[in-house]
Amino acid sequence: MDVDPRKLTDALRSKLGTGLVVPRPIAVVSSVSREGYMNIAPFSYFNVISDTPLVLGFSLTGPKPDKSEKDTLRNVRKPAQGGVGEFVINVATEHYGQAVAAAGASLPYGTSEFEYAGLTPMPSKHVKAPHIAEAWAYFECRTRRIIKVGHAHLVMGDVIHLWVRDDLIDERYRINHTRLCAIGRLAGMEYCRTGDRFSMTTGERPTATVATK
Amino acid sequence: MDVDPRKLTDALRSKLGTGLVVPRPIAVVSSVSREGYMNIAPFSYFNVISDTPLVLGFSLTGPKPDKSEKDTLRNVRKPAQGGVGEFVINVATEHYGQAVAAAGASLPYGTSEFEYAGLTPMPSKHVKAPHIAEAWAYFECRTRRIIKVGHAHLVMGDVIHLWVRDDLIDERYRINHTRLCAIGRLAGMEYCRTGDRFSMTTGERPTATVATK
Repeated sequence: MDVDPRKLTDALRSKLGTGLVVPRPIAVVSSVSREGYMNIAPFSYFNVISDTPLVLGFSLTGPKPDKSEKDTLRNVRKPAQGGVGEFVINVATEHYGQAVAAAGASLPYGTSEFEYAGLTPMPSKHVKAPHIAEAWAYFECRTRRIIKVGHAHLVMGDVIHLWVRDDLIDERYRINHTRLCAIGRLAGMEYCRTGDRFSMTTGERPTATVATK
Repeated sequence: MDVDPRKLTDALRSKLGTGLVVPRPIAVVSSVSREGYMNIAPFSYFNVISDTPLVLGFSLTGPKPDKSEKDTLRNVRKPAQGGVGEFVINVATEHYGQAVAAAGASLPYGTSEFEYAGLTPMPSKHVKAPHIAEAWAYFECRTRRIIKVGHAHLVMGDVIHLWVRDDLIDERYRINHTRLCAIGRLAGMEYCRTGDRFSMTTGERPTATVATK
């Protein structure tokens, strides 16, 4: 099927992006407003942008249903733009998956998703934003840059500190994915687990040919 | 374990990013140089950046081992910067997974990963870059913007056309993930499948509480 995405409704176009760019990692972003209101929201348009330095990026699409700017965006803006300029990206794992999905609720500004999702805010080491006490790993970030791309805002943050539970990492800094149980995002209400894994060597020639469509 | 990523070696820092930002979708980027050399390379620092319009982004880290610029970056640069300004993102799925990993080989400039990986270049509809004939879905993209972030380059492309095999999409534009069998990237040589899925309703309150760490 051939599709020109520019001719689709917003809903269908979004469905194709989320349906075909899979599986997506989930950033559970915790932030705080200048007034001290704490916020959490999950974002799956998320990835590493740079290794050196370590920069993570996530994209916020459109405004909230009531057209107001998303709380996360207000909070992560640099101080000169009215925000705090700092945030935490908590790693989404299966053990608190229901809370991650709950944090996607559209609550009025100033209402805490922490309470709604049954999660506990904990002071972070180097940033004003709290992290999630229930998370098994998180990145403390300082906003590097926010770029408007179409109707979306891409937020880039420098990781200035990270924490991971001791039993999830070995002395060579390898993460134990069997224990971590990260979850990924697909389209609609679907998520995937990371338990079904396999290895392939980069650059190794394939042993079999593949049929063309 | 507390870590300041700024104090790590490049290799360890990268390992933490790829170990904890998981699972990552894989863009198998096909491109062509001005001289007509065709290229493929997989990138897992990849995601949707905007829904409206549909913009995809992938990040290229560092130069090749011989310090030359990656072929993909040369090719996707806009014509004024010496490139073609167009590319195709092929969706990485299990049926040609070995070829995807093979395309990550570091070959000299002008050597085609298509041949090396046993894949077939096919003319695209609206862009000069070929797509992969074996791929079950792909996005034809026009370079929107390339941003340098640390040592990396984030390439953003507007999707001007997309194709997906008829049996993978229904009349409501929902993708059949059981048939698509997309693969995701973890750290090292590890990949995950998307067969083990579950559903959660966004915004629904959790039914159980979660222990803090």
